[in-house]
Amino acid sequence: MSFATIADFDAALADLSRPDEAATAAARARQAVLTKPAGSLGRLEDIALFLAGWQRRKRPVLDRARAVVFAGNHGIATRGVSAFPADVTAQMVANFANGGAAINALADAAGLDLHVVPLDLDRPTQDFTQGPAMSEADCLAALSAGAETVEPGLDLFVPGEMGIGNSTAAAALCARSFGGTVADWVGPGTGLDAAGVRHKLAVIETALAFHADAPLTPFETLRRLGGREIAAMAGAILRARQLRVPVVLDGFICCAAIAPLAAAIPAITDHCLAGHCSAEPGHVRLLERLGLDPLLRLGMRLGEGSGATVAVQIVRAALATHNGMATFAEAGVSGGA
Amino acid sequence: MSFATIADFDAALADLSRPDEAATAAARARQAVLTKPAGSLGRLEDIALFLAGWQRRKRPVLDRARAVVFAGNHGIATRGVSAFPADVTAQMVANFANGGAAINALADAAGLDLHVVPLDLDRPTQDFTQGPAMSEADCLAALSAGAETVEPGLDLFVPGEMGIGNSTAAAALCARSFGGTVADWVGPGTGLDAAGVRHKLAVIETALAFHADAPLTPFETLRRLGGREIAAMAGAILRARQLRVPVVLDGFICCAAIAPLAAAIPAITDHCLAGHCSAEPGHVRLLERLGLDPLLRLGMRLGEGSGATVAVQIVRAALATHNGMATFAEAGVSGGA
Repeated sequence: MSFATIADFDAALADLSRPDEAATAAARARQAVLTKPAGSLGRLEDIALFLAGWQRRKRPVLDRARAVVFAGNHGIATRGVSAFPADVTAQMVANFANGGAAINALADAAGLDLHVVPLDLDRPTQDFTQGPAMSEADCLAALSAGAETVEPGLDLFVPGEMGIGNSTAAAALCARSFGGTVADWVGPGTGLDAAGVRHKLAVIETALAFHADAPLTPFETLRRLGGREIAAMAGAILRARQLRVPVVLDGFICCAAIAPLAAAIPAITDHCLAGHCSAEPGHVRLLERLGLDPLLRLGMRLGEGSGATVAVQIVRAALATHNGMATFAEAGVSGGA
Repeated sequence: MSFATIADFDAALADLSRPDEAATAAARARQAVLTKPAGSLGRLEDIALFLAGWQRRKRPVLDRARAVVFAGNHGIATRGVSAFPADVTAQMVANFANGGAAINALADAAGLDLHVVPLDLDRPTQDFTQGPAMSEADCLAALSAGAETVEPGLDLFVPGEMGIGNSTAAAALCARSFGGTVADWVGPGTGLDAAGVRHKLAVIETALAFHADAPLTPFETLRRLGGREIAAMAGAILRARQLRVPVVLDGFICCAAIAPLAAAIPAITDHCLAGHCSAEPGHVRLLERLGLDPLLRLGMRLGEGSGATVAVQIVRAALATHNGMATFAEAGVSGGA
């Protein structure tokens, strides 16, 4: 296992890689001579420099870009916190396998290799109002399952998720990691009405009270309030950092997966772009806490890695200009005054 | 010519086509049964319905999508209103032809057929502080040159522009069309410093004073304060409306091209998506006046159709999901509660 022990996980989090400053500088020098006013491509220029640094290439590429959808089932779903029945998790995994879901269409359009990793769907996590969601061994297994989907040499990684009930776990993770009231973090998820949101809020408050005296470490918070697909995303994002693979984060659940890590070690997000800001109300606040400015604000709230995968098109546009444009000298164009 | 007379232009503007409500309704019904929570794809769903209505297809496509960069030279450029010399317009047209500009890379990435239309570059418009920028015949010719780039059966059209000095013309068009102070509309363009912006503002105030008593019609405003590439974009957008071809608008200059039309006939923008909000400060206000919510906010300020072309990737993502996803029944997935 990539994270065989809690110490392995903690050690990875304490020893974060850095981007290659020479590659970033070389990319910046190239941007300065491309046939456009300086800075006129805005965030496309920033993205090119970001990828240059993490890929350690003056001209970064997206030849091997991968999206992985992790799926898990949640004990908390028995508490009536979702608009959909828990069976939908497995039904959607079948839909992913058959190519019928949003992420299939979007990954294909964005040129991403798509993997689907169901995690013990027949063995939901524990109801975390009454105990930890996962044993230590289960949490380490999920972290490792995530980590093992990230290979050396990947140019970009997109973590996605499916798990009925997981916006409840995500809100609990955010409240435990960053504080504030539960109302700051809770929202309708896939489509709860106002009464449903109030019930979900009460369930989360019960859970936070139950775990109030637990150790406030990234691992314990993930284990107690997360879920298998959530821990898998955290493991994948951490493994990507070890391998210097840049990541595009998806919505509220994906970002909540690293909330416990970021609360302890804010630099964990340095290799991450925020793909989008979801319609789930807690996501704006969460992105602020993570120090990330989302590329897209399209009101999406589907999960599966869908928003991040749309954002990969922006990354492709950034690289198309960075790598494809002529310089002032090549084109015989006069530079700015 | 598509617009041989001013009356032709006015008649086109007075008789605007409408989207096909039956096609929109059929697309809405399809969205409701795709395997996702209702509304969870946010603006991607809106885009699919928008294209369905204008293309009159339940399942709209982007098989024939076109970007056209119109280029023109401006008498006003002799007033020192740009960070670049006027020669750059022709140099960039050569760069477009050689495939070295941002729009080449972006159009290729977005699957757009790219055309470049230089408009009498050796014959700049008049300095509009001292007279109308164009004669009636010149303005009609430019409107028609734009219209002729839009063919029946196009699935999408992106108007772009290149013209040293044209953010000065754009700011003048906005102030004349929508009022407010010149300071509300003026900005650094390709990279003026604060003193340069103050000078540009004074030039625009001189021009507005000169034309203060002119007829306040779309044609006269375009003719007096616009430029050939600006009138060509207006003509193309109006012709697209006649042909029910949906349009993705680019930045400040592109949107300013329809400001005189929209001030008279606000519904002119109904077949348009705003591709992005540019870093040029007047663009936020202009998009509000046009009633458009931009798809992207990436701090781009290049023109050429570049921001709109990046936004076409969002349109492609919208259609990929709309056309490619399975329904709940096809996938055997339980619908929402």
